[in-house]
Amino acid sequence: MGKVGCVFGTHRVLEPKGVLPQPAWKIDNTMEIYDNELLIDVDTLNIDAASFTQIKKEAQGDTSVMEKIMLDIVAKRGKHHNPVTGSGGMLMGTVSRIGPAWAGKTPVKVGDRIATLVSLSLTPLKINKIKKYHLEKEQVEVDAQAILFSSGIYAVLPEDLSPSLALAVLDVAGAPAQTAQLVRPGQNVLIIGGGGKSGMLCMYEAKKRAGITGKVIGLGSSEGSCNRMRKMGHADSVIQVDATDPLAVMKAVSEITNGEMVDVVINCVNIPGTELGSVMATKDKGTVYFFSMATSFTSAALGAEGIGKDVTMLIGNGYCRDHAVIALQTVREDPILTKTFQELYA
Amino acid sequence: MGKVGCVFGTHRVLEPKGVLPQPAWKIDNTMEIYDNELLIDVDTLNIDAASFTQIKKEAQGDTSVMEKIMLDIVAKRGKHHNPVTGSGGMLMGTVSRIGPAWAGKTPVKVGDRIATLVSLSLTPLKINKIKKYHLEKEQVEVDAQAILFSSGIYAVLPEDLSPSLALAVLDVAGAPAQTAQLVRPGQNVLIIGGGGKSGMLCMYEAKKRAGITGKVIGLGSSEGSCNRMRKMGHADSVIQVDATDPLAVMKAVSEITNGEMVDVVINCVNIPGTELGSVMATKDKGTVYFFSMATSFTSAALGAEGIGKDVTMLIGNGYCRDHAVIALQTVREDPILTKTFQELYA
Ligand SMILES: NC(=O)c1ccc[n+]([C@@H]2O[C@H](COP(=O)([O-])OP(=O)(O)OC[C@H]3O[C@@H](n4cnc5c(N)ncnc54)[C@H](OP(=O)(O)O)[C@@H]3O)[C@@H](O)[C@H]2O)c1
Ligand SMILES: NC(=O)c1ccc[n+]([C@@H]2O[C@H](COP(=O)([O-])OP(=O)(O)OC[C@H]3O[C@@H](n4cnc5c(N)ncnc54)[C@H](OP(=O)(O)O)[C@@H]3O)[C@@H](O)[C@H]2O)c1
Repeated sequence: MGKVGCVFGTHRVLEPKGVLPQPAWKIDNTMEIYDNELLIDVDTLNIDAASFTQIKKEAQGDTSVMEKIMLDIVAKRGKHHNPVTGSGGMLMGTVSRIGPAWAGKTPVKVGDRIATLVSLSLTPLKINKIKKYHLEKEQVEVDAQAILFSSGIYAVLPEDLSPSLALAVLDVAGAPAQTAQLVRPGQNVLIIGGGGKSGMLCMYEAKKRAGITGKVIGLGSSEGSCNRMRKMGHADSVIQVDATDPLAVMKAVSEITNGEMVDVVINCVNIPGTELGSVMATKDKGTVYFFSMATSFTSAALGAEGIGKDVTMLIGNGYCRDHAVIALQTVREDPILTKTFQELYA
Repeated sequence: MGKVGCVFGTHRVLEPKGVLPQPAWKIDNTMEIYDNELLIDVDTLNIDAASFTQIKKEAQGDTSVMEKIMLDIVAKRGKHHNPVTGSGGMLMGTVSRIGPAWAGKTPVKVGDRIATLVSLSLTPLKINKIKKYHLEKEQVEVDAQAILFSSGIYAVLPEDLSPSLALAVLDVAGAPAQTAQLVRPGQNVLIIGGGGKSGMLCMYEAKKRAGITGKVIGLGSSEGSCNRMRKMGHADSVIQVDATDPLAVMKAVSEITNGEMVDVVINCVNIPGTELGSVMATKDKGTVYFFSMATSFTSAALGAEGIGKDVTMLIGNGYCRDHAVIALQTVREDPILTKTFQELYA
């Protein structure tokens, strides 16, 4: 019998002591499992969009530099926890060992293909080799191993969708499920970054909830993402504005809503500096849902205060009940989403 | 006629261009006002608790070092915007000039004593001299000048409360007003940092809303703050735990609620690293209100995901409608709060 660790993985925390693996600076990535852990042979990492964008920028797109940065992060921290953005991503692989005390979990067997639904920012990881980069998908093929704690959630990959498509969807699973909770019939909704991966799912879900009397507006900075939104047809309007320019966002949204502004903003960008634009597009007493991991807490809180705006601001919890099922179903139920996701992520 | 600037103060932004004064790195603190600005002769700065704690720590409590740090921040940024914590604070002073285009605002006269209700992190400030430190109150007497934009909100100081007490209350005005919105009769509520300035106001407001069938729990790390909470009598229970130790928080809250946990957590601490403790104390589908400016967005989002916890997490907007009136009234209506705030902050 081996050792039984803490369900939350505190036994893996090296520094600082006493915290959980996510906020920890460094965790133990020895690939010898405790009795209540699961060992995964990892083949694909899906790096969080905010993190991937930052690494790509730092490396100026040079994959050999990206490799160095990524390996360095894991060497220093025992996990792929980007110290600049604070975010992680998720992984896909095959279960290779199950600790005997892995209890109270849905049945999983050695050999099952799973995706972890907890962030890479808390997952013990050892990368032996980076084999291939898929820059557009923000995925990296690797020869690696990882560990899941017994509090960690995962999904067995569905059979009807390609693994890399499923992984892409599961990465942002929280977004459509939360959009469904937030949007009510008849509301004005703005999706910032609506042409991105999470944005497209939110756009569809928002239109479904807001209905015929609601107005769903998609916002992107590039012609590419705006054209995609127009083609997909889930948005009532599409506007091309730089979300880091708050006055431009406010003006564009005001024009399109006849000064009404929106009830709900869903922020799905992959870059920093969009807090105030989000707040200024919102009606008084409206809601901003920050799904973007590039959100700054103080910029949002003090920015809203600074302009005397009474809005509810939500931190995008990556998890909500049944989010994996909901996200995969979203892609399945709409033929346009299915097709677009096939083209981009399969 | 002088120049008319942007209502949001973008005309004062030096770098980077195009953003609002709050997220800006540096703003123009020339004390010559635009036609839609207000000039204030500042006598007191109320430094945000997270910022003050950080500065005091960096200076190891030496006020001459603190002076250097504070003057340095303003010299570099044109505002007292702590680069480490990202937070500001507020100020008190006397209106000395009103631009001719300062329009659509409640009437304010030259000579009025006001407190700004927008953060120092966006307020053009020039400090001529730091005259006195009040370490316990986190206030600093200064000879300084500041500018308010026409989108900026302020309060004329009430006559029945001492100015420094009013300033202390107004600094955290958002907290009790939001607590009133969040807490329903019969709920379990945990106030982390309940013995602090915002914490005490929240504790009173939470008990008022949760009522006789609700359970309000106050949490502090020191004996001092816990004894204060016990003496004040607004909490049904008081627990002394370090909020940066998530498992200890979970255990203590579980014990006191017979495993039920709480519906609402109000986080009022002045130190980083308490996101997970807050999340773990909350029931599934419960709410965490992060009033603390030391909150990390990614730690909250990824931490909750990491343990598969479906909770709503709110960013503490410093502003909500009528928050100043509500906060001052809270201190007035309860004799115990009045007395305690008199002792600590008058
Ligand atoms: N909360 C969570 O648990 C969680 C989980 C996973 C991911 N995330 C976060 O969710 C965010 C989105 O992820 P994703 O995978 O959906 O990203 P993505 O596919 O890369 O999409 C990002 C979108 O942002 C838009 N954008 C970028 N810069 C912009 C600007 N200046 N103005 C307007 N739009 C801009 C892009 O459109 P253009 O090309 O037109 O600019 C793009 O459509 C990321 O920040 C990620 O970290 C959060
Ligand atoms: N959102 C906004 O707009 C806004 C506006 C103003 C202020 N704030 C923020 O609100 C927070 C509180 O401000 P405040 O003026 O009320 O602060 P405060 O009076 O200094 O109170 C802080 C409280 O936190 C407790 N605390 C500190 N470390 C702790 C630990 N490890 N475990 C448990 N409790 C701990 C302290 O109790 P012990 O001494 O017992 O540890 C104290 O009671 C600050 O972070 C500030 O930045 C936000």
